[in-house]
Amino acid sequence: MVRTERLQVQTRGDSQVVNITDAAASLVAGCGVTAGVATLFVVGSTAGLTTTEYEPGLADHDLKAAFERIAPEDGRYEHENTWHDDNGHSHVRASLLGPSLSIPFVDGRLTLGTWQQIILIDFDTRSRTRTVVCQIMGD
Amino acid sequence: MVRTERLQVQTRGDSQVVNITDAAASLVAGCGVTAGVATLFVVGSTAGLTTTEYEPGLADHDLKAAFERIAPEDGRYEHENTWHDDNGHSHVRASLLGPSLSIPFVDGRLTLGTWQQIILIDFDTRSRTRTVVCQIMGD
Amino acid sequence: MVRTERLQVQTRGDSQVVNITDAAASLVAGCGVTAGVATLFVVGSTAGLTTTEYEPGLADHDLKAAFERIAPEDGRYEHENTWHDDNGHSHVRASLLGPSLSIPFVDGRLTLGTWQQIILIDFDTRSRTRTVVCQIMGD
Repeated sequence: MVRTERLQVQTRGDSQVVNITDAAASLVAGCGVTAGVATLFVVGSTAGLTTTEYEPGLADHDLKAAFERIAPEDGRYEHENTWHDDNGHSHVRASLLGPSLSIPFVDGRLTLGTWQQIILIDFDTRSRTRTVVCQIMGD
Repeated sequence: MVRTERLQVQTRGDSQVVNITDAAASLVAGCGVTAGVATLFVVGSTAGLTTTEYEPGLADHDLKAAFERIAPEDGRYEHENTWHDDNGHSHVRASLLGPSLSIPFVDGRLTLGTWQQIILIDFDTRSRTRTVVCQIMGD
Repeated sequence: MVRTERLQVQTRGDSQVVNITDAAASLVAGCGVTAGVATLFVVGSTAGLTTTEYEPGLADHDLKAAFERIAPEDGRYEHENTWHDDNGHSHVRASLLGPSLSIPFVDGRLTLGTWQQIILIDFDTRSRTRTVVCQIMGD
């Protein structure tokens, strides 16, 4: 059985971390599939998905600081020469984090830890409305 | 067909790299599914999964050194102000590596390369018993 | 339904970025499965998969520059003492990026964004012929 669902997520950009756990868990619980895998995929090349403990220290500061080390906002990017825009660092951060996440579920519940939430990080330099495809497959 | 299996992995923390290839391959070989995808997912927000050539140089030194560049152990983390603990770097490293890995299998065998092993990296600051959910789906 | 396909990708190594979107999309369109997930997995421990906007600035310069920060080519790697070779940085970069990518498809089309392409990055220090397993599952 395959169920295709989509989440719409409003963001501010600027490496904002958005907790999408409850929305994803609701889709899985309501889809009529008992056990399987939820494949989450963010459409676009300046955002990514992962898990973290969702608390203000990590979400508002620490994750962003690490991405600043990997791809500084004020660095020089050839991408910006191609398009004369300002989001070269956004693209690089998104590629390193990756767009997809695969989470098993059992008895209609995602197998997340208690302190483990699903997050979307929007690395773009402006507010965006993001689409996360949630493909649910199983028995 | 969906088969839900779980591995228990004992670690020392401190970015220890644990080779879980044989355990995962055994689950796939013994589950009665011929071809499909094994979705591996580590429960918790201070560990991650990937593949590498499992040899002492990479496993005991080089991978850890790269994560030290991205999220230094002695850096300043707001997470540690939230909880008064010491594992801010562990959370950041785990989020960047990611908790899930999807590996195709054919004829009951994972499609890994000869020098490519599945590893769990435990970034926490103490020993842990980790659960890796292995969701096997296919024909 | 499970369909196992393989792509062969010729690379120059040296963190070359190769756009494999059209090849993957053709496999999905031609396999007779309407909706599901394409699991892409690169065999080997010195290459990885992700998505990006495929244009020369990101592909030929910016992504490589970020990996140079994480794992410099001229750094010291214990891996190179193990084997007396020169690709310690290649292994570290590949492990951080990860070997697998899971992309939902609907009506035989991958749910990629307009400016989002699937890329293989070959971090090895020489030209390689890479195999990407494409496991297609769905209805």
